[in-house]
Amino acid sequence: MATIFTRIIRGEIPCHRVYEDALVLAFLDVNPISDGHTLIVPREPAETVDKLSDESAAAIGRALPRVCRAILKATGAPAYNILQNNGSDAHQAVPHVHFHVIPRYPDRPAAAGLGIVWKAGALDGAHGKELAARIAAAVSP
Amino acid sequence: MATIFTRIIRGEIPCHRVYEDALVLAFLDVNPISDGHTLIVPREPAETVDKLSDESAAAIGRALPRVCRAILKATGAPAYNILQNNGSDAHQAVPHVHFHVIPRYPDRPAAAGLGIVWKAGALDGAHGKELAARIAAAVSP
Repeated sequence: MATIFTRIIRGEIPCHRVYEDALVLAFLDVNPISDGHTLIVPREPAETVDKLSDESAAAIGRALPRVCRAILKATGAPAYNILQNNGSDAHQAVPHVHFHVIPRYPDRPAAAGLGIVWKAGALDGAHGKELAARIAAAVSP
Repeated sequence: MATIFTRIIRGEIPCHRVYEDALVLAFLDVNPISDGHTLIVPREPAETVDKLSDESAAAIGRALPRVCRAILKATGAPAYNILQNNGSDAHQAVPHVHFHVIPRYPDRPAAAGLGIVWKAGALDGAHGKELAARIAAAVSP
């Protein structure tokens, strides 16, 4: 079944478009957590980033600076987060890859819709060495 | 002054490398918020995504699925977030673009180092139309 993003890409559902190219579409989130909150999606209906083709992934990467520059210029935001969720256990709501660009406005604390809680540990050297080797070995050539 | 990431890229500081190509380096975060927490950085010392070249941005995009697939394979994590912060008001700590890949483990709630608080509103149609037009107009050709 087509997700809401596929239906937007097909033009079946309207959106407030801010950017498009052959592989990528960007539009305002209809449930913004700050002013200028934008979604960047591949036209390819991949569910998660790990399932995205090289071509779409490179196109998303190339679109990011362009869209972010335009958002900063249009909103005057001094800072922003890019957040992309994969899997329901990571808060993914729509099963079609989407990158959130979320402007931050420190002078508008009441408008701070995004909160990030960060509890970091310290990487054990022996574990890090072993884990990095396993991840590196798992990278497809 | 060179940031810690530039010094890692130059080989002056060691890292647990998981991936590299001509434009991109990925390595384990030494202060992980979950097992397999990885940083993907461009070799180009851009401070924020909006300042990144097309070439580096596309290379980061292309590297993301590869690195994410390898992390999932090596860790068995069922979900993950990609988070990228721009500006101190968006929690950026090192002034060199870095994409966090943060595996999520729902079966290990005690290991949940990342919390995301999301307070969304509703986009006003007239404002959305006007804002989207301004952002679209600000996209460089």
